[in-house]
Amino acid sequence: MAGLLRALALGLLLLPGAAMALDDEDVLAWLDREQEQYAALALALWDEAELGYLETESSGLLQQELAAADFRIETGVAGLPTAFVASYGSGEPVIGILAEFDALPGISQTAAPRREPHPDKHSGHACGHHLFGAGSTAAAVAVRQWMEANNIPGTLRLYGTPAEEGGSGKVYMVRAGLFDDVDSVLVWHPADRNAADIATTLANKSARFRFRGIASHAAVAPERGRSALDAVEAMNYMANLMREHMPQEARMHYVITSGGSAPNVVPDFAESFYYLRHPQAATLEQLWSRLLETAEGAALGTGTEMELEVIHGNHSVLPNETLASAMHRRLTMVGGVTYDAADLAFATELAESLASREADLAAAAARIEPMSLLQGMGSTDVGDVSWTVPTAEMRAATWVPGTAPHTWQAIAAGGTAIGTKGMMVAAKTMALTAIDLFLQPELLQAARAEFEQRRGTDFEYRPLLGDREPPLDYRR
Amino acid sequence: MAGLLRALALGLLLLPGAAMALDDEDVLAWLDREQEQYAALALALWDEAELGYLETESSGLLQQELAAADFRIETGVAGLPTAFVASYGSGEPVIGILAEFDALPGISQTAAPRREPHPDKHSGHACGHHLFGAGSTAAAVAVRQWMEANNIPGTLRLYGTPAEEGGSGKVYMVRAGLFDDVDSVLVWHPADRNAADIATTLANKSARFRFRGIASHAAVAPERGRSALDAVEAMNYMANLMREHMPQEARMHYVITSGGSAPNVVPDFAESFYYLRHPQAATLEQLWSRLLETAEGAALGTGTEMELEVIHGNHSVLPNETLASAMHRRLTMVGGVTYDAADLAFATELAESLASREADLAAAAARIEPMSLLQGMGSTDVGDVSWTVPTAEMRAATWVPGTAPHTWQAIAAGGTAIGTKGMMVAAKTMALTAIDLFLQPELLQAARAEFEQRRGTDFEYRPLLGDREPPLDYRR
Amino acid sequence: MAGLLRALALGLLLLPGAAMALDDEDVLAWLDREQEQYAALALALWDEAELGYLETESSGLLQQELAAADFRIETGVAGLPTAFVASYGSGEPVIGILAEFDALPGISQTAAPRREPHPDKHSGHACGHHLFGAGSTAAAVAVRQWMEANNIPGTLRLYGTPAEEGGSGKVYMVRAGLFDDVDSVLVWHPADRNAADIATTLANKSARFRFRGIASHAAVAPERGRSALDAVEAMNYMANLMREHMPQEARMHYVITSGGSAPNVVPDFAESFYYLRHPQAATLEQLWSRLLETAEGAALGTGTEMELEVIHGNHSVLPNETLASAMHRRLTMVGGVTYDAADLAFATELAESLASREADLAAAAARIEPMSLLQGMGSTDVGDVSWTVPTAEMRAATWVPGTAPHTWQAIAAGGTAIGTKGMMVAAKTMALTAIDLFLQPELLQAARAEFEQRRGTDFEYRPLLGDREPPLDYRR
Amino acid sequence: MAGLLRALALGLLLLPGAAMALDDEDVLAWLDREQEQYAALALALWDEAELGYLETESSGLLQQELAAADFRIETGVAGLPTAFVASYGSGEPVIGILAEFDALPGISQTAAPRREPHPDKHSGHACGHHLFGAGSTAAAVAVRQWMEANNIPGTLRLYGTPAEEGGSGKVYMVRAGLFDDVDSVLVWHPADRNAADIATTLANKSARFRFRGIASHAAVAPERGRSALDAVEAMNYMANLMREHMPQEARMHYVITSGGSAPNVVPDFAESFYYLRHPQAATLEQLWSRLLETAEGAALGTGTEMELEVIHGNHSVLPNETLASAMHRRLTMVGGVTYDAADLAFATELAESLASREADLAAAAARIEPMSLLQGMGSTDVGDVSWTVPTAEMRAATWVPGTAPHTWQAIAAGGTAIGTKGMMVAAKTMALTAIDLFLQPELLQAARAEFEQRRGTDFEYRPLLGDREPPLDYRR
Repeated sequence: MAGLLRALALGLLLLPGAAMALDDEDVLAWLDREQEQYAALALALWDEAELGYLETESSGLLQQELAAADFRIETGVAGLPTAFVASYGSGEPVIGILAEFDALPGISQTAAPRREPHPDKHSGHACGHHLFGAGSTAAAVAVRQWMEANNIPGTLRLYGTPAEEGGSGKVYMVRAGLFDDVDSVLVWHPADRNAADIATTLANKSARFRFRGIASHAAVAPERGRSALDAVEAMNYMANLMREHMPQEARMHYVITSGGSAPNVVPDFAESFYYLRHPQAATLEQLWSRLLETAEGAALGTGTEMELEVIHGNHSVLPNETLASAMHRRLTMVGGVTYDAADLAFATELAESLASREADLAAAAARIEPMSLLQGMGSTDVGDVSWTVPTAEMRAATWVPGTAPHTWQAIAAGGTAIGTKGMMVAAKTMALTAIDLFLQPELLQAARAEFEQRRGTDFEYRPLLGDREPPLDYRR
Repeated sequence: MAGLLRALALGLLLLPGAAMALDDEDVLAWLDREQEQYAALALALWDEAELGYLETESSGLLQQELAAADFRIETGVAGLPTAFVASYGSGEPVIGILAEFDALPGISQTAAPRREPHPDKHSGHACGHHLFGAGSTAAAVAVRQWMEANNIPGTLRLYGTPAEEGGSGKVYMVRAGLFDDVDSVLVWHPADRNAADIATTLANKSARFRFRGIASHAAVAPERGRSALDAVEAMNYMANLMREHMPQEARMHYVITSGGSAPNVVPDFAESFYYLRHPQAATLEQLWSRLLETAEGAALGTGTEMELEVIHGNHSVLPNETLASAMHRRLTMVGGVTYDAADLAFATELAESLASREADLAAAAARIEPMSLLQGMGSTDVGDVSWTVPTAEMRAATWVPGTAPHTWQAIAAGGTAIGTKGMMVAAKTMALTAIDLFLQPELLQAARAEFEQRRGTDFEYRPLLGDREPPLDYRR
Repeated sequence: MAGLLRALALGLLLLPGAAMALDDEDVLAWLDREQEQYAALALALWDEAELGYLETESSGLLQQELAAADFRIETGVAGLPTAFVASYGSGEPVIGILAEFDALPGISQTAAPRREPHPDKHSGHACGHHLFGAGSTAAAVAVRQWMEANNIPGTLRLYGTPAEEGGSGKVYMVRAGLFDDVDSVLVWHPADRNAADIATTLANKSARFRFRGIASHAAVAPERGRSALDAVEAMNYMANLMREHMPQEARMHYVITSGGSAPNVVPDFAESFYYLRHPQAATLEQLWSRLLETAEGAALGTGTEMELEVIHGNHSVLPNETLASAMHRRLTMVGGVTYDAADLAFATELAESLASREADLAAAAARIEPMSLLQGMGSTDVGDVSWTVPTAEMRAATWVPGTAPHTWQAIAAGGTAIGTKGMMVAAKTMALTAIDLFLQPELLQAARAEFEQRRGTDFEYRPLLGDREPPLDYRR
Repeated sequence: MAGLLRALALGLLLLPGAAMALDDEDVLAWLDREQEQYAALALALWDEAELGYLETESSGLLQQELAAADFRIETGVAGLPTAFVASYGSGEPVIGILAEFDALPGISQTAAPRREPHPDKHSGHACGHHLFGAGSTAAAVAVRQWMEANNIPGTLRLYGTPAEEGGSGKVYMVRAGLFDDVDSVLVWHPADRNAADIATTLANKSARFRFRGIASHAAVAPERGRSALDAVEAMNYMANLMREHMPQEARMHYVITSGGSAPNVVPDFAESFYYLRHPQAATLEQLWSRLLETAEGAALGTGTEMELEVIHGNHSVLPNETLASAMHRRLTMVGGVTYDAADLAFATELAESLASREADLAAAAARIEPMSLLQGMGSTDVGDVSWTVPTAEMRAATWVPGTAPHTWQAIAAGGTAIGTKGMMVAAKTMALTAIDLFLQPELLQAARAEFEQRRGTDFEYRPLLGDREPPLDYRR
């Protein structure tokens, strides 16, 4: 992506555009014209597939694009080298758009509609964050054109938010106060549907529990050893017993990240990695205390030492019906994804590998889902933003209907026109919704009022991950 | 058993006997003559089959017999209603003979050579303590006759020791100082062999671990409950993990004595009952501390409370080669059990149910095993006596060769002539060994010297069960 | 309860009553007059507190009452000695009323408002089935008076259904076809509220899993033993792992009913008792198969043998909005429980021991709750009836508001006027609802139509407990 | 190591040597002269620190040395690229010497007497096999000189045996029949003592147990997942329960080599790696069957699939007192290691880090231990050789007394003169013992007779690892 050329391209557009007012149709038309450029940007990120806090190239490409459109870039914010805030305009209102760009480890795939791991990669955009980043950027640049053309007062901000996948990048940005003066935030996510819901998620918190014992030859002197793996298994045992005594909406899951090195040595180190979730942060914290006691009890009962490192923590998403309705109205106006014959052929082949199949794939991709109340069982660091600023989130059908996140099918479609078409649905909807927010102060006020009411009067934001420093090396 | 008639019977014997000295042969002859009487006494105990600390009848029958022979009886010693000390003579040396008489719960059998639970009983002499008690009494009365006849100075004591099976009766008697002035102790045990070995056992300690949680309807509100059964299982889990990290000679075993009352209620109470053993008391105490930590860790990790009650604790047996050799010499002189045709028929039929079969049952019952060094893996409260007084123990073939203790086969043979013949082998051997001890001060001195050397100079007796009161209701 | 005197008392009433028509008000008035008699009947059952399938006296008392009112009694139905069907009238429609009368083991209490276990009892009516039985009987007798007085055609049946608590008494009665010709069934349950809801429950199924291993002395030869308790714990372990992989609405809980007899013997027998529940019977059966595999896997992995006995199994309750609405209308007409000063004083003191307290206890007892959709997390054998006949169930405030079932507080209030007043609320509501059913064929038709629609066209009733014989000794 | 120069050096020696007979003293003198060369060879291997089946350089260096001394080299034997047999002479008797040369992964250290991981290495000779390989080679070349000089008939073989550490290299060589015609085998091992014992080891067998489940999002749809990690933990649970029911001499230990990849995904793959050991191969195989059932039971109980790969398996060492006595005599003649001031300074500093310290390090290094019966609790693939050929093994003090195998202290000393001095003790003792074997047919016959007697008449060799192909990539 040649930043300079892009700047010229944008400049040529902007010169005449500055002289005359732009309406919704102009914005949509501009995005249609730019579709190819942003598709290329998205695919460049898809190729990089950089992991959390290591997204140097991907973050840089987005920053180039925004800088070329005269955004002011502040980078390395909140102590996160790949985080940035790109701003345009000044004063109130302040409207934020979020852009993610990290990939997932351990899974790769080409843009083929059948399982075909990428020969050179160990990571992939299985959650579509390359589209997320490029699409949000497209929306931001479109709104910026509209603001200049129409002399709109206020500030537009594009937040480049790294490490959503297990890194809680946004939480550090919230904690650093970067959202304190924002009036509303718009965000989207790649999906297999087009929808703007009144949706929430589970608050979650994760930690690595590290146990240290005493090594000994496991055949010659096992009685002199104290097994750290025993402690990991004892903690797991008690955590599994705890399941029965948790509210049924809670979720707890773990892997053993270090289970000893050689069978003939009593392991003096072992580690497990736990996630714990619940719709309410307060309940989550209570459950967390109990989980901590399973770890302490395991250390006590196996003669080992335990220490834990909280890795990440996200609040649930606080929904905002006012904003969701506004977004849903615009999404309906924009419409869903239109498959051409090639898209349909791709989707049809890919759908053969899906567990739940949609009868009419093209119709499902084109459809806008009715707005609904939704308790998602996943988690996202958008949660912490949503308890700080009224936030609306939509989904666009960047994946073949029936596709689940974090699958090779998501990577595959994300590398094709299906992905970039879905991305443009999101870019358009977000741009038009942002325009509404700039033009309708009463909408911002209503959203704020609902936000205050939902949050409660005595709410005080506390990050679930506490005061830990960002785990910049968690993907190394 | 009519105590008065017995007294008369003994009296008739004693009157002339007092006038003339008795030698070894006379003692053996006396025991042969009395065999039927003592067999009847043993079978009376076999019929009662009373459990630990509840042996009122059994203890009473033995006391009657001893009182009829002019022993002075002190009963209810050491706070144990069924314990007693029967004494004859005065001054030094003091020679003790131990007599047990408690049965085992949960197993009953008639005197048949095939499995035939007793229709009216829930307990049985599966460890042969009825023979133990009656045989030791026979030996004591025989020695007493000899002492009077020969004007032997010194004191003979028969200790009636209740609740050997899990009740540690002798430990309370040792703790109360009842053995402090004794020079040597003789003891035997029913078995499938005739032997006097340099044998030791495992020290052991037991406790009930009681966990308390919070009851709740297990379907409606499991999240409000804290399961005490979870705690029991978590403790067991960590205890089982601990096995790998114990010396291989250690033994740990448990049952769950209370595992919740109804599945649809989260159990607010649960209990397990643990035994822990090791040849060395000091190592046992270290392992015990670790076991305690598994219980504490389980309580911590399951949100429950734990308390424990130590139930019993026995030291290992401290062997004494000097005394064992003396006893082995006498045992060899006395010889083993001689089967008649009926005995052999019974043994042959019973042996069909045994896992390990002896080719020539009659020969095995008649044989005296060579003296050997033996690490037994069981435990006995004779252990605590043996760290207080030089002690010798022998076994006599009261059971069909191949029979294990605590089996129906042991009950069965114990109710027949096989059992009482074996008992008389023990009674004779113990009587003759006691005579040796009275007559040979140098034997007592050598035994004491070996005892001091084995025990170590800085030895201080501490009961493994600590200062707890006797669990007089542990079998109710 | 003198049955003969009762018969005379009823007879005196009936003779004149037969001559003139009775309306709703007369029925209510009759029940008010009889309140004391039925309260006495209920308290007689409360005193007996008989356990499942052992309710000889309690069942007999109800039968006496019904026989005295000219019901035809068929007893010992479906192979259940304490089950009976009491019938009055003939022909269609057939309206059923259910009466339970079993108590719960392991909990007793006097009629005091503070914890006071009954000195002579080990069981108690902690689920209020004494009120259930007497109240339903009162309703049936009242309706029978009304039928005779008004020459109403059709059949009224009172089903005496034993062993609801874990015995699934009704399931055997359904399986035997005793409900096949019934048009509608009315039922109530003691509670801390007055309500008639569109409520369902969880289907459930229980079994005892019995494992057999090889006994061995746990210290001398543990390697020769195979522990049945190991198997129980291994099954529990895998069942607990399975929790994460069950739908969150599922419920699974267990106790260990036999955990070995003595620590020094490797247990050759051990048993656990499991309940498994889910809203859908089909899902429950799938989960059951997996639970079974944890048992089989545990036996395989521990070298033991497993066999299971299904103990009980109840379908979920199939709600019927048509009937629930009819019942709710009558309940609203009847009104709730009115506390006098003594009731309030009792309730106030008792409420101090409750976790969740109601601010105005008298108001809560008097209130009729709005009709609502309800997913109860408990289970009942009414479920199987409800998949066979359109069924309506109500609750009446027989307990102090805030009281949970299966608590001492439920026993206590059930032994006072609070309990019997609540019982009369139920008796009146059921009587009036039954009258509606006899008088309104269209109501029966609508209820049937809804029933068929909810059940599905290809429904085929299969008892979850299969073809097992009734476990008549499950409470011995 | 320049093979050609070495060849010349050896040649210069051999030319005159060929003309005159050599006696023991000449052999010892030759080894003293060559000490520096063989020390250099050992340190070259120490530097390489190549892992099992990857020892290309190390094997090559030993082959060069042997080829230069006119040994015939057959390489890549038994399908093992780094295995070789170097032969000299022909006909009977056939005397074998074993040479190992593989290092251990995960541990590195410089030649410093304090903990100092090697900056560039991830492996190290923590078991001293570099000395083993070079020392055995020195012995072989010395014997070959002596054979030629004295015209000794018979065959000398040096077996280059790779991958002793968990790779069971020798087992494949035994299985391929490479030892079938050998009369006796001599072997040594680096240690902290000088000793030739009548020693045995534990037979062992290892396998990786791989479980496959069904992946699912652990928060969104855990009920659709089947966790392979659950299966690993369930197997471990049952294996830990099995401990109580194994003979106490058995050893079982495991690590979890794959415990899931990310907490938010139900793991569809997990793996554990088990070792199981017992003094008797037959008992080991029985225990193995039971371990296998814990794995099968775990798969069944968790809804997963299991497969296992046996990784290695070694028989116990069959001792040979005849050969051990011969070796002990020669070892006593040769004497132990003599520390100079530098050695002692090194040993003294290093000993500060040892748990068990020797009072007089120099004396302990110089001492020859009395020959004793020894049940080692480790395992070695020398075991399989020892059931095929009468075998004698000695240890030499290449490590500071008090050092355990597989520690950094072993690597450190192995990189100094202490290591190479100890190596020469072994080289001299093995050379002289081999000479005895060539000169004393009666010694070979006696060793063979004892061997046959110990092995039993119906013995049939079966490798514990079955017919699997060598795991040539087990260390990649």
